[in-house]
Amino acid sequence: MDPQKDVLGFVGIGVMGKSMAGHLLKAGYRVRVFTRSKEKAKELLELGAEWDETPALLAPKCACVFTMVGVPSDVEEVYFGPKGLIDNARPGTLLVDTTTSRPDLARRIAEAAKAKGLRALDAPVSGGDVGARNATLTIMVGGEAADFAEVKPLLECMGKTVILQGPAGAGQHTKMANQIVIAGNLAGAVEALTYARAAGLDPRMVLQSIGAGSAGSWQLNTMGPRMLDGDFAPGFYVKHFLKDLRIALEAAREMKLRLPFLAMAEELFAKAEAQGMGDNGTQVLYRFYERGLV
Amino acid sequence: MDPQKDVLGFVGIGVMGKSMAGHLLKAGYRVRVFTRSKEKAKELLELGAEWDETPALLAPKCACVFTMVGVPSDVEEVYFGPKGLIDNARPGTLLVDTTTSRPDLARRIAEAAKAKGLRALDAPVSGGDVGARNATLTIMVGGEAADFAEVKPLLECMGKTVILQGPAGAGQHTKMANQIVIAGNLAGAVEALTYARAAGLDPRMVLQSIGAGSAGSWQLNTMGPRMLDGDFAPGFYVKHFLKDLRIALEAAREMKLRLPFLAMAEELFAKAEAQGMGDNGTQVLYRFYERGLV
Repeated sequence: MDPQKDVLGFVGIGVMGKSMAGHLLKAGYRVRVFTRSKEKAKELLELGAEWDETPALLAPKCACVFTMVGVPSDVEEVYFGPKGLIDNARPGTLLVDTTTSRPDLARRIAEAAKAKGLRALDAPVSGGDVGARNATLTIMVGGEAADFAEVKPLLECMGKTVILQGPAGAGQHTKMANQIVIAGNLAGAVEALTYARAAGLDPRMVLQSIGAGSAGSWQLNTMGPRMLDGDFAPGFYVKHFLKDLRIALEAAREMKLRLPFLAMAEELFAKAEAQGMGDNGTQVLYRFYERGLV
Repeated sequence: MDPQKDVLGFVGIGVMGKSMAGHLLKAGYRVRVFTRSKEKAKELLELGAEWDETPALLAPKCACVFTMVGVPSDVEEVYFGPKGLIDNARPGTLLVDTTTSRPDLARRIAEAAKAKGLRALDAPVSGGDVGARNATLTIMVGGEAADFAEVKPLLECMGKTVILQGPAGAGQHTKMANQIVIAGNLAGAVEALTYARAAGLDPRMVLQSIGAGSAGSWQLNTMGPRMLDGDFAPGFYVKHFLKDLRIALEAAREMKLRLPFLAMAEELFAKAEAQGMGDNGTQVLYRFYERGLV
């Protein structure tokens, strides 16, 4: 992509999208944006982004459109809806969905795109708001190698570890593997700190003993202290994690895989959401245990 | 402890005990040893350790006795058996159990020791055979602060992170917290790699994407590659891990704690052991899933 002639699009300007689109602007690209609530795009528009009223109006003006929306049904609407990208992009346009979404939907988008002479990649990210802000995201990509090669320099404006994992859907599957690991690591951290507290230990001192060795994990060492501080502000929302766990679980079931730890994590986070904890960060699982809700 | 006048004892010369006692010898201490099969002590005896035929014969010659045996019933025998330490040590002797064992047994030893004018610490370790060899173990201690202060320089001959976690039993409880975290981290790694393989991804490339971010853990990054290589040689035996999980689960139940992930880990490792996997390393859980045994 050439900043001098290729215009980029970005659909979905939330916490993540704002930072990500901002990096493309800073890299010198013209960026057109659409998001459901225009006020969320205000900062980007002040930085020089241009506004379109729908994805359908944005798409034909862009050589490459990124999307970062909420849940799979939002992805469906943005790609397949009456004002969607598939029906309105110019032939050759690259469509890159960075939303964490269903692998089968990613494959369906890739096929529909191909039928229209478009190209699509699934490219979900990990690293959260901090990673988006600092352009240190991990970006896990599924799609054709040639399309990946073309879009890689743009993804590297937004992320640090950018890897093509396989054909369409492989990016989403990789993100699911990431979330499955996190579910286990979180569960281990929560149950261990719950045990430590009940046993009368000082859980902070326990972290000093166990955090650096074979029990060490990002979740234990980053989320553990927040759990103990009662800091349940969202880095990553329970409701979003639950969405991801359900996508993973459904994909696993379609593959006839039994993943009992994943299934239990889904169950417990669903209970936590039912207790009104959905807008907390995932580390709130500790409080869920603390209150004997498990 | 003074290398010029204080003799140390070490009971239980397995893979761990051999390295640990060796570090005490290298630090200039006289070390007396006992273990069930004398040939296992051969190397240490060649390095200058002295042999006793029973813990009862060893105890009265030592100012401080370390123990590193197998399971809680072995600990009971070494401390409370007819040829045990409690009945035969001189008043003032420090008894330091580095076996991973039951917290309630650690408290019982501490009480019995006190009644006899002895002093006892529980000091289980993590870091495995490599940590023992390189003297980089994490040592988690329970007991009296003054006794800990006295023995700390000796523990620092064998480990890097040596922390008093609380009164008698607190070392064992901390080790249980460590094992609970590991159970979750292992489960997350195993289920994620199982998912990745089933989804047709290259699990090694998946590790490249997810290993360094918020899914990162020692288990994922160290055991993940071994799982994928089919290398199930024991770093840490399934049968020993299962013993630890059962101690943790029983302690949790006594505290009226529900820890469903821990309970599920115990169940799956028990099934793996029943399938003849007990002498493999814990990473064999991946094969257990691979074979559809879950």
